[in-house]
Amino acid sequence: MRLDEIGRQPCSVAKALSEIGDAWSILILREAFYGRRRFSDFAAFTGAQNTVVSARLKALVEAGILERTVYSEYPTRHHYRLTGKGRELAPVLFTLVEWGDKWIDADGGRPIDLTHTCGHHIDPVTVCGHCGERLDPSDITPSTGPGYPTHLPDPFSTADD
Amino acid sequence: MRLDEIGRQPCSVAKALSEIGDAWSILILREAFYGRRRFSDFAAFTGAQNTVVSARLKALVEAGILERTVYSEYPTRHHYRLTGKGRELAPVLFTLVEWGDKWIDADGGRPIDLTHTCGHHIDPVTVCGHCGERLDPSDITPSTGPGYPTHLPDPFSTADD
Repeated sequence: MRLDEIGRQPCSVAKALSEIGDAWSILILREAFYGRRRFSDFAAFTGAQNTVVSARLKALVEAGILERTVYSEYPTRHHYRLTGKGRELAPVLFTLVEWGDKWIDADGGRPIDLTHTCGHHIDPVTVCGHCGERLDPSDITPSTGPGYPTHLPDPFSTADD
Repeated sequence: MRLDEIGRQPCSVAKALSEIGDAWSILILREAFYGRRRFSDFAAFTGAQNTVVSARLKALVEAGILERTVYSEYPTRHHYRLTGKGRELAPVLFTLVEWGDKWIDADGGRPIDLTHTCGHHIDPVTVCGHCGERLDPSDITPSTGPGYPTHLPDPFSTADD
Protein backbone atom coordinates (compact mmCIF):
# COMPACT_ATOMS: atom_id res chain seq x y z
CA MET A 1 0.00 0.00 0.00
CA ARG A 2 1.28 3.43 -0.92
CA LEU A 3 1.19 6.37 1.44
CA ASP A 4 -1.51 8.14 -0.58
CA GLU A 5 -3.77 5.11 -0.21
CA ILE A 6 -3.75 5.18 3.59
CA GLY A 7 -7.14 6.93 3.69
CA ARG A 8 -8.82 3.87 2.17
CA GLN A 9 -8.22 1.81 5.30
CA PRO A 10 -11.35 1.24 7.42
CA CYS A 11 -9.81 3.18 10.31
CA SER A 12 -10.33 6.74 11.50
CA VAL A 13 -6.65 7.18 12.35
CA ALA A 14 -5.74 6.33 8.77
CA LYS A 15 -8.44 8.58 7.34
CA ALA A 16 -7.39 11.45 9.60
CA LEU A 17 -3.77 11.01 8.56
CA SER A 18 -4.80 11.16 4.91
CA GLU A 19 -5.95 14.73 5.61
CA ILE A 20 -3.43 15.97 8.17
CA GLY A 21 -0.74 13.27 8.30
CA ASP A 22 2.13 15.40 7.21
CA ALA A 23 4.46 17.21 9.54
CA TRP A 24 4.22 20.49 7.63
CA SER A 25 0.43 20.36 7.66
CA ILE A 26 0.44 19.90 11.42
CA LEU A 27 2.88 22.79 11.90
CA ILE A 28 0.58 24.97 9.76
CA LEU A 29 -2.33 23.93 12.00
CA ARG A 30 -0.21 24.77 15.06
CA GLU A 31 0.21 28.29 13.70
CA ALA A 32 -3.50 28.54 12.89
CA PHE A 33 -4.25 27.69 16.53
CA TYR A 34 -1.77 30.40 17.54
CA GLY A 35 -3.85 32.89 15.56
CA ARG A 36 -1.89 33.16 12.31
CA ARG A 37 -3.95 33.71 9.19
CA ARG A 38 -1.62 34.96 6.49
CA PHE A 39 0.41 32.96 4.01
CA SER A 40 3.56 34.90 4.89
CA ASP A 41 3.14 34.10 8.59
CA PHE A 42 2.59 30.40 7.94
CA ALA A 43 5.80 30.36 5.92
CA ALA A 44 7.82 32.39 8.43
CA PHE A 45 6.73 30.55 11.55
CA THR A 46 6.76 26.98 10.22
CA GLY A 47 10.05 27.42 8.34
CA ALA A 48 8.57 25.61 5.33
CA GLN A 49 9.30 26.68 1.78
CA ASN A 50 6.62 28.74 0.04
CA THR A 51 5.82 25.92 -2.37
CA VAL A 52 5.27 23.56 0.57
CA VAL A 53 3.09 26.07 2.43
CA SER A 54 1.06 26.70 -0.71
CA ALA A 55 0.42 22.99 -1.33
CA ARG A 56 -0.46 22.24 2.29
CA LEU A 57 -2.81 25.23 2.65
CA LYS A 58 -4.58 24.15 -0.53
CA ALA A 59 -4.98 20.59 0.77
CA LEU A 60 -6.21 21.79 4.18
CA VAL A 61 -8.78 24.04 2.49
CA GLU A 62 -9.91 21.18 0.25
CA ALA A 63 -10.27 18.96 3.32
CA GLY A 64 -12.49 21.60 4.95
CA ILE A 65 -10.04 22.14 7.83
CA LEU A 66 -9.14 25.73 6.90
CA GLU A 67 -11.25 28.23 4.99
CA ARG A 68 -9.81 30.85 2.72
CA THR A 69 -11.36 34.31 2.70
CA VAL A 70 -10.40 37.49 0.86
CA TYR A 71 -9.39 40.24 3.26
CA SER A 72 -7.98 42.69 0.73
CA GLU A 73 -9.23 43.31 -2.83
CA TYR A 74 -6.37 45.46 -4.24
CA PRO A 75 -4.07 43.60 -4.13
CA THR A 76 -6.02 40.37 -3.57
CA ARG A 77 -4.95 38.88 -0.26
CA HIS A 78 -6.37 35.92 1.63
CA HIS A 79 -6.76 34.84 5.20
CA TYR A 80 -6.80 31.18 6.22
CA ARG A 81 -8.91 30.40 9.26
CA LEU A 82 -9.81 27.21 11.05
CA THR A 83 -13.27 25.85 10.31
CA GLY A 84 -15.32 23.98 12.91
CA LYS A 85 -13.75 20.75 11.66
CA GLY A 86 -10.31 22.34 12.01
CA ARG A 87 -10.93 23.73 15.49
CA GLU A 88 -11.89 20.27 16.71
CA LEU A 89 -8.33 19.14 16.04
CA ALA A 90 -7.34 21.18 19.09
CA PRO A 91 -7.27 18.17 21.47
CA VAL A 92 -4.93 16.35 19.08
CA LEU A 93 -2.54 19.31 19.01
CA PHE A 94 -2.76 19.97 22.74
CA THR A 95 -2.07 16.36 23.70
CA LEU A 96 0.81 16.26 21.21
CA VAL A 97 2.34 19.43 22.70
CA GLU A 98 2.02 17.97 26.18
CA TRP A 99 3.71 14.73 25.17
CA GLY A 100 6.56 16.60 23.47
CA ASP A 101 6.96 18.89 26.49
CA LYS A 102 7.28 15.92 28.78
CA TRP A 103 9.29 13.44 26.78
CA ILE A 104 11.56 15.28 24.36
CA ASP A 105 14.41 17.60 25.16
CA ALA A 106 12.62 19.00 28.18
CA ASP A 107 15.72 20.05 30.13
CA GLY A 108 15.11 23.75 29.69
CA GLY A 109 11.39 23.54 30.34
CA ARG A 110 8.68 23.84 27.76
CA PRO A 111 9.44 26.15 24.83
CA ILE A 112 5.84 27.37 24.52
CA ASP A 113 3.43 27.98 27.38
CA LEU A 114 -0.26 27.43 26.72
CA THR A 115 -2.26 29.24 29.38
CA HIS A 116 -5.90 28.48 29.99
CA THR A 117 -8.44 31.15 30.91
CA CYS A 118 -8.35 29.71 34.43
CA GLY A 119 -4.85 31.21 34.67
CA HIS A 120 -2.89 27.95 34.63
CA HIS A 121 -0.97 25.90 32.07
CA ILE A 122 -3.54 23.77 30.23
CA ASP A 123 -2.01 20.45 31.40
CA PRO A 124 -4.38 18.55 29.09
CA VAL A 125 -5.99 15.41 30.48
CA THR A 126 -8.06 13.15 28.24
CA VAL A 127 -10.93 11.42 29.99
CA CYS A 128 -13.71 9.03 29.04
CA GLY A 129 -16.72 11.13 28.02
CA HIS A 130 -19.04 8.70 29.76
CA CYS A 131 -17.48 8.00 33.17
CA GLY A 132 -14.96 10.85 33.38
CA GLU A 133 -12.02 8.58 34.22
CA ARG A 134 -8.62 9.45 32.78
CA LEU A 135 -8.16 7.23 29.70
CA ASP A 136 -5.53 4.55 30.10
CA PRO A 137 -4.80 2.39 27.04
CA SER A 138 -4.99 -0.79 29.10
CA ASP A 139 -8.62 0.05 29.94
CA ILE A 140 -9.69 0.12 26.30
CA THR A 141 -10.74 -2.75 24.05
CA PRO A 142 -10.90 -2.33 20.27
CA SER A 143 -13.45 -4.12 18.14
CA THR A 144 -14.94 -3.63 14.70
CA GLY A 145 -17.62 -0.95 14.56
CA PRO A 146 -20.68 -0.43 12.35
CA GLY A 147 -18.55 1.23 9.64
CA TYR A 148 -16.15 -1.68 9.26
CA PRO A 149 -16.53 -3.37 5.86
CA THR A 150 -18.31 -6.67 6.28
CA HIS A 151 -16.27 -8.37 3.53
CA LEU A 152 -12.99 -7.89 5.43
CA PRO A 153 -11.79 -10.26 8.14
CA ASP A 154 -12.03 -9.13 11.76
CA PRO A 155 -8.64 -7.50 12.50
CA PHE A 156 -8.94 -8.28 16.21
CA SER A 157 -9.35 -12.02 15.96
CA THR A 158 -5.61 -12.55 15.41
CA ALA A 159 -3.95 -10.11 17.82
CA ASP A 160 -0.97 -11.31 19.80
CA ASP A 161 -1.65 -12.29 23.34
CA MET B 1 14.01 24.29 6.42
CA ARG B 2 13.96 20.64 5.43
CA LEU B 3 11.57 18.12 6.89
CA ASP B 4 14.31 16.35 8.82
CA GLU B 5 15.21 19.61 10.54
CA ILE B 6 11.76 20.14 12.02
CA GLY B 7 12.86 18.79 15.40
CA ARG B 8 15.22 21.74 15.84
CA GLN B 9 12.36 24.18 16.21
CA PRO B 10 11.75 25.39 19.78
CA CYS B 11 8.32 23.80 19.80
CA SER B 12 7.08 20.55 21.29
CA VAL B 13 4.78 19.87 18.35
CA ALA B 14 7.74 20.05 16.00
CA LYS B 15 9.91 17.89 18.27
CA ALA B 16 7.12 15.34 18.64
CA LEU B 17 6.64 15.21 14.87
CA SER B 18 10.35 14.60 14.42
CA GLU B 19 9.82 11.34 16.32
CA ILE B 20 6.34 10.25 15.21
CA GLY B 21 5.41 12.63 12.40
CA ASP B 22 5.02 10.09 9.69
CA ALA B 23 1.77 8.44 8.77
CA TRP B 24 3.26 4.93 8.76
CA SER B 25 4.78 5.45 12.21
CA ILE B 26 1.41 6.50 13.58
CA LEU B 27 -0.31 3.48 12.01
CA ILE B 28 2.33 1.25 13.60
CA LEU B 29 1.59 2.92 16.94
CA ARG B 30 -2.13 2.36 16.35
CA GLU B 31 -1.42 -1.35 15.98
CA ALA B 32 0.79 -1.34 19.08
CA PHE B 33 -2.13 0.14 21.04
CA TYR B 34 -4.34 -2.61 19.62
CA GLY B 35 -1.94 -5.15 21.11
CA ARG B 36 0.18 -6.13 18.11
CA ARG B 37 3.79 -6.95 18.87
CA ARG B 38 5.16 -8.85 15.88
CA PHE B 39 6.80 -7.47 12.76
CA SER B 40 4.52 -9.57 10.55
CA ASP B 41 1.42 -8.17 12.25
CA PHE B 42 2.60 -4.56 11.92
CA ALA B 43 3.15 -5.19 8.21
CA ALA B 44 -0.15 -7.00 7.68
CA PHE B 45 -2.38 -4.58 9.59
CA THR B 46 -0.83 -1.28 8.47
CA GLY B 47 -0.48 -2.35 4.83
CA ALA B 48 3.03 -0.90 4.73
CA GLN B 49 5.84 -2.60 2.84
CA ASN B 50 8.31 -4.61 4.92
CA THR B 51 11.13 -2.13 4.27
CA VAL B 52 8.92 0.69 5.55
CA VAL B 53 7.85 -1.26 8.64
CA SER B 54 11.47 -2.16 9.36
CA ALA B 55 12.67 1.45 9.10
CA ARG B 56 9.82 2.85 11.20
CA LEU B 57 10.15 0.22 13.95
CA LYS B 58 13.87 0.95 14.15
CA ALA B 59 13.22 4.70 14.46
CA LEU B 60 10.50 4.19 17.08
CA VAL B 61 12.84 1.97 19.12
CA GLU B 62 15.64 4.56 18.83
CA ALA B 63 13.22 7.26 20.00
CA GLY B 64 12.37 5.14 23.06
CA ILE B 65 8.71 4.81 22.04
CA LEU B 66 8.82 1.06 21.42
CA GLU B 67 11.14 -1.49 22.99
CA ARG B 68 12.35 -4.57 21.19
CA THR B 69 12.64 -7.81 23.13
CA VAL B 70 13.62 -11.31 22.07
CA TYR B 71 10.75 -13.75 22.53
CA SER B 72 12.23 -16.70 20.65
CA GLU B 73 15.89 -17.74 20.46
CA TYR B 74 15.76 -20.35 17.67
CA PRO B 75 14.96 -18.74 15.33
CA THR B 76 15.55 -15.30 16.81
CA ARG B 77 12.25 -13.42 16.90
CA HIS B 78 11.42 -10.09 18.45
CA HIS B 79 8.46 -8.40 20.03
CA TYR B 80 7.93 -4.66 19.89
CA ARG B 81 6.10 -3.19 22.86
CA LEU B 82 5.16 0.31 23.88
CA THR B 83 7.39 1.90 26.52
CA GLY B 84 6.06 4.36 29.10
CA LYS B 85 6.89 7.17 26.68
CA GLY B 86 5.00 5.32 23.95
CA ARG B 87 1.97 4.56 26.08
CA GLU B 88 1.59 8.24 26.88
CA LEU B 89 0.88 8.87 23.21
CA ALA B 90 -2.52 7.26 23.83
CA PRO B 91 -4.39 10.57 24.21
CA VAL B 92 -2.99 11.75 20.87
CA LEU B 93 -4.20 8.58 19.14
CA PHE B 94 -7.57 8.54 20.90
CA THR B 95 -8.35 12.18 20.08
CA LEU B 96 -7.24 11.59 16.48
CA VAL B 97 -9.55 8.56 16.19
CA GLU B 98 -12.43 10.57 17.58
CA TRP B 99 -11.85 13.42 15.15
CA GLY B 100 -11.68 11.02 12.21
CA ASP B 101 -14.80 9.20 13.39
CA LYS B 102 -16.72 12.46 13.51
CA TRP B 103 -15.46 14.35 10.50
CA ILE B 104 -14.39 11.93 7.80
CA ASP B 105 -16.49 9.49 5.89
CA ALA B 106 -18.65 8.77 8.89
CA ASP B 107 -21.79 7.74 7.00
CA GLY B 108 -21.52 4.10 7.97
CA GLY B 109 -20.61 4.77 11.58
CA ARG B 110 -17.17 4.35 13.09
CA PRO B 111 -15.08 1.55 11.62
CA ILE B 112 -13.45 0.68 14.95
CA ASP B 113 -15.13 0.77 18.36
CA LEU B 114 -12.98 1.58 21.37
CA THR B 115 -14.77 0.44 24.48
CA HIS B 116 -13.75 1.66 27.93
CA THR B 117 -13.84 -0.56 31.02
CA CYS B 118 -16.92 1.41 32.07
CA GLY B 119 -18.70 -0.37 29.23
CA HIS B 120 -19.16 2.60 26.90
CA HIS B 121 -17.38 4.03 23.85
CA ILE B 122 -14.45 6.09 25.12
CA ASP B 123 -15.78 9.38 23.64
CA PRO B 124 -12.52 11.10 24.63
CA VAL B 125 -12.80 14.58 26.12
CA THR B 126 -9.70 16.66 26.76
CA VAL B 127 -9.94 18.93 29.78
CA CYS B 128 -7.69 21.41 31.56
CA GLY B 129 -5.76 19.52 34.22
CA HIS B 130 -6.17 22.42 36.63
CA CYS B 131 -9.80 23.49 36.43
CA GLY B 132 -11.31 20.44 34.67
CA GLU B 133 -13.05 22.49 31.97
CA ARG B 134 -13.22 21.07 28.46
CA LEU B 135 -10.38 22.72 26.50
CA ASP B 136 -11.54 25.15 23.83
CA PRO B 137 -8.83 26.69 21.64
CA SER B 138 -10.29 30.18 22.11
CA ASP B 139 -9.67 29.85 25.86
CA ILE B 140 -5.93 29.32 25.42
CA THR B 141 -3.17 31.90 25.05
CA PRO B 142 0.29 30.89 23.78
CA SER B 143 3.46 32.59 25.00
CA THR B 144 7.13 31.71 25.09
CA GLY B 145 8.06 29.33 27.89
CA PRO B 146 11.27 28.78 29.90
CA GLY B 147 12.71 26.51 27.18
CA TYR B 148 12.36 29.07 24.40
CA PRO B 149 15.79 30.22 23.15
CA THR B 150 16.46 33.73 24.41
CA HIS B 151 18.29 34.73 21.22
CA LEU B 152 15.19 34.22 19.06
CA PRO B 153 12.47 36.86 18.63
CA ASP B 154 9.17 36.35 20.44
CA PRO B 155 6.96 34.53 17.91
CA PHE B 156 3.81 35.89 19.51
CA SER B 157 4.58 39.59 19.18
CA THR B 158 3.61 39.61 15.49
CA ALA B 159 0.50 37.42 15.37
CA ASP B 160 -2.42 38.60 13.26
CA ASP B 161 -5.26 40.19 15.12
